[in-house]
Amino acid sequence: MSDQQFYQHHVFFCLNQRESGGRPCCHDRGAQEAQEHAKRRIKDLDLSGPGKVRINKAGCLDRCEEGPVLVVYPEGTWYTYVDKEDIDEIIDEHLVKGKVVERLKI
Amino acid sequence: MSDQQFYQHHVFFCLNQRESGGRPCCHDRGAQEAQEHAKRRIKDLDLSGPGKVRINKAGCLDRCEEGPVLVVYPEGTWYTYVDKEDIDEIIDEHLVKGKVVERLKI
Repeated sequence: MSDQQFYQHHVFFCLNQRESGGRPCCHDRGAQEAQEHAKRRIKDLDLSGPGKVRINKAGCLDRCEEGPVLVVYPEGTWYTYVDKEDIDEIIDEHLVKGKVVERLKI
Repeated sequence: MSDQQFYQHHVFFCLNQRESGGRPCCHDRGAQEAQEHAKRRIKDLDLSGPGKVRINKAGCLDRCEEGPVLVVYPEGTWYTYVDKEDIDEIIDEHLVKGKVVERLKI
């Protein structure tokens, strides 16, 4: 199972929106804006596409209490974030340089 | 970047639905039914949860022409499928036994 990866970094943002008020949900914590920002920035950096980066929407990743969350594969690195600066740091450090952003890692 | 994975196998089904008639889309090829079937079956097999398997919905994975598609991480194995028997084979062989289903791999 060690073929070359189709995407070097495949990023999934949890965009789940819960109907009831039970568990928290990423949707209510700015996940959509963050995903759109990341997608646009990766495109602007010309990092988008096969062999490079893909920014994806995803349903509930089931780590709601730690949200908002995203996961980067194939590394399997999970992050939380607060604002666009956090997203930019994940892009600049992890997706561009391959360095885990420890302060945002969960 | 080699910590233990939160999910042993994290499966993303492309459920994207296109509005126009340009590229094909996974949604029109039974992706939702397949995802729901996989989710239910993984639950029935008691394989669902941290350290085990997570079946996720995803937006467009951008391999539309090869669709419907799913990807299993952290392996980064991509599959196409036609029916529930294909999904069951991916579950029984790949997710349970760790063996790639070559005939469905893309």
